[in-house]
Amino acid sequence: MRGMNPNDALPRPIAITIGDVCGIGPEIIAKLFREEQASGCVVIGDVGVMRRAAAIVGGSLAVARIERASDIDELPPCCIPVLQLGSLPADLASLPFGRIDARAGAAAAACIEHAVPLARAGEIGAIVTAPIHKEALAAAGVRFPGHTEMLQALAADGGELVPPVRMMLANDELRTVLVTIHMSLRDALDALDFDAVLSTIRIAHASAARWGQPNPRIAVAGLNPHAGEGGLFGREEIEFIAPAVAAACAEGIAASGPFAPDTVFMRARNAPDHPGEFDVVVSMLHDHGLIPVKYLGVEQGVNVTLGLPFVRTSPDHGTAFDIAGTGCADPASLAAAVRMARQLSARP
Amino acid sequence: MRGMNPNDALPRPIAITIGDVCGIGPEIIAKLFREEQASGCVVIGDVGVMRRAAAIVGGSLAVARIERASDIDELPPCCIPVLQLGSLPADLASLPFGRIDARAGAAAAACIEHAVPLARAGEIGAIVTAPIHKEALAAAGVRFPGHTEMLQALAADGGELVPPVRMMLANDELRTVLVTIHMSLRDALDALDFDAVLSTIRIAHASAARWGQPNPRIAVAGLNPHAGEGGLFGREEIEFIAPAVAAACAEGIAASGPFAPDTVFMRARNAPDHPGEFDVVVSMLHDHGLIPVKYLGVEQGVNVTLGLPFVRTSPDHGTAFDIAGTGCADPASLAAAVRMARQLSARP
Repeated sequence: MRGMNPNDALPRPIAITIGDVCGIGPEIIAKLFREEQASGCVVIGDVGVMRRAAAIVGGSLAVARIERASDIDELPPCCIPVLQLGSLPADLASLPFGRIDARAGAAAAACIEHAVPLARAGEIGAIVTAPIHKEALAAAGVRFPGHTEMLQALAADGGELVPPVRMMLANDELRTVLVTIHMSLRDALDALDFDAVLSTIRIAHASAARWGQPNPRIAVAGLNPHAGEGGLFGREEIEFIAPAVAAACAEGIAASGPFAPDTVFMRARNAPDHPGEFDVVVSMLHDHGLIPVKYLGVEQGVNVTLGLPFVRTSPDHGTAFDIAGTGCADPASLAAAVRMARQLSARP
Repeated sequence: MRGMNPNDALPRPIAITIGDVCGIGPEIIAKLFREEQASGCVVIGDVGVMRRAAAIVGGSLAVARIERASDIDELPPCCIPVLQLGSLPADLASLPFGRIDARAGAAAAACIEHAVPLARAGEIGAIVTAPIHKEALAAAGVRFPGHTEMLQALAADGGELVPPVRMMLANDELRTVLVTIHMSLRDALDALDFDAVLSTIRIAHASAARWGQPNPRIAVAGLNPHAGEGGLFGREEIEFIAPAVAAACAEGIAASGPFAPDTVFMRARNAPDHPGEFDVVVSMLHDHGLIPVKYLGVEQGVNVTLGLPFVRTSPDHGTAFDIAGTGCADPASLAAAVRMARQLSARP
């Protein structure tokens, strides 16, 4: 049976948390099972919510409540296995789609909190998170702005040792690791310093072995237009970005930069007709990195949290309240997130 | 003869300023003439510099000094017509490639200053500017950080009425107009306000008729991650970007937003298999807009200054000091800039 023996050849189950139940999360999960792209996956969430999602997407999907992740081996195909959280409200499956609801925010957080100890204990091989809505989280009194920050705190497990983590966005052509993420630009400017940049370069370097690149070519993007144009358009590149690149190089990391943000992603893009100059780009700002990853379409983009003591991926889109409940949401990015989770958890 | 009669069917000449002579400007201009993509163009600069460039790129190009732009009609093919500036240093053509030089910066500025009155007088139909180097300009004591600011001041012609101008970057798939450009991110945050955003939307709207879209669909990108996520990640969207969009709509402009910066460019991208949702995107920051325009390769990107009383375009790359003088620079973006200048100056 799967996961009984640490030497077992079968990979451990991958847990998918349901995300905000008023968004598209449950229905794209159901589609993934319907299209048989979720083999080896277990849903952490609510049976009623997944039944509603299965009805929306059609295709004769059964929903089965299971007690342990490893129970998925016992189930027939075209069945969605759900680890039911006891703490969820009974009416979760009747919340209206497309609205910010504190109950949905609280449920989304509870599922993530449930998944982390399973990952730490090795009962699951990775966590794939369906989209949450930050305003619903805030309405529920959850103090984290997003998954990444919540997982970081949960990984510390109540202790003082909060691991430094970074968000990576990846598709088939481009990987970028972000120094700052879910904060205003003004706050990002204040958060950026030598340690934040060097730490990001180190995390990118240390994580790349998981995707098969033990010594990745890391390009560091600048912050300002033209990477500051020699100090004319800002001095952050001179004061701490270039020194952080130099410090990384002194540690044997293949880092270079800072490069002008407007061309470094084009240079790193790795396409059949365009071999990339770099394996990963370190971006100072959320949108410097996400604009190019998403530019050719969000379908294949995957969000990976680097630096955690377990593997975590997610699709790179949001809850899409405008189409939630219609069954037309595209599960491609979630499918890519599951594939990436399988790949990353297969390596030691 | 060309340009003699305002009703003449022949378009007026397009002037190409040589840019920084230590960079790739002169040689990509020479390539354009060699490849017969510069018909109807005249170079504003230095005969010696263009002779050096012609020798580098080969192909039996002659260089002819002319007195007026309209003289180009008298020249044989494969000849580069140059309007020689009297004020340039005699040794300009012997400056080493790939170095910041105040003499090159001063010469680049002088060519631009010479071009503007010709455009205002209608002797030329458009100005296409080869790349300058901002540090060379600064070394020459030129107080403008780039072409756009310099052209804006020259367009005011010593008067008080400095026209509001904006930089547009365009390729076959995407057009974006920038609210802030050549300044640090900290300065950009201070420069952004209701008037700056509304003015940019108005300029984008008013200019679009020149490229054949009298009522363009204008998407306004946010400033902060997720366009502020309802105020959680910054309040600029609430405080002045959304109000500026509303004010533009009240004037009958088809503006919408603010949209999350990381997906609005993907939505606006207009490709054969991906019809764009918008005709132009207004970007708060230089790199929000330039990253996606350049992502698929800089070859086809063109920089257009909107709001001037004449047409001005340029390639969207820099002086490329690392390859200047080798003859290997790609003239594709300059060729696209000339094509765009022809298109924009053909309309009233």
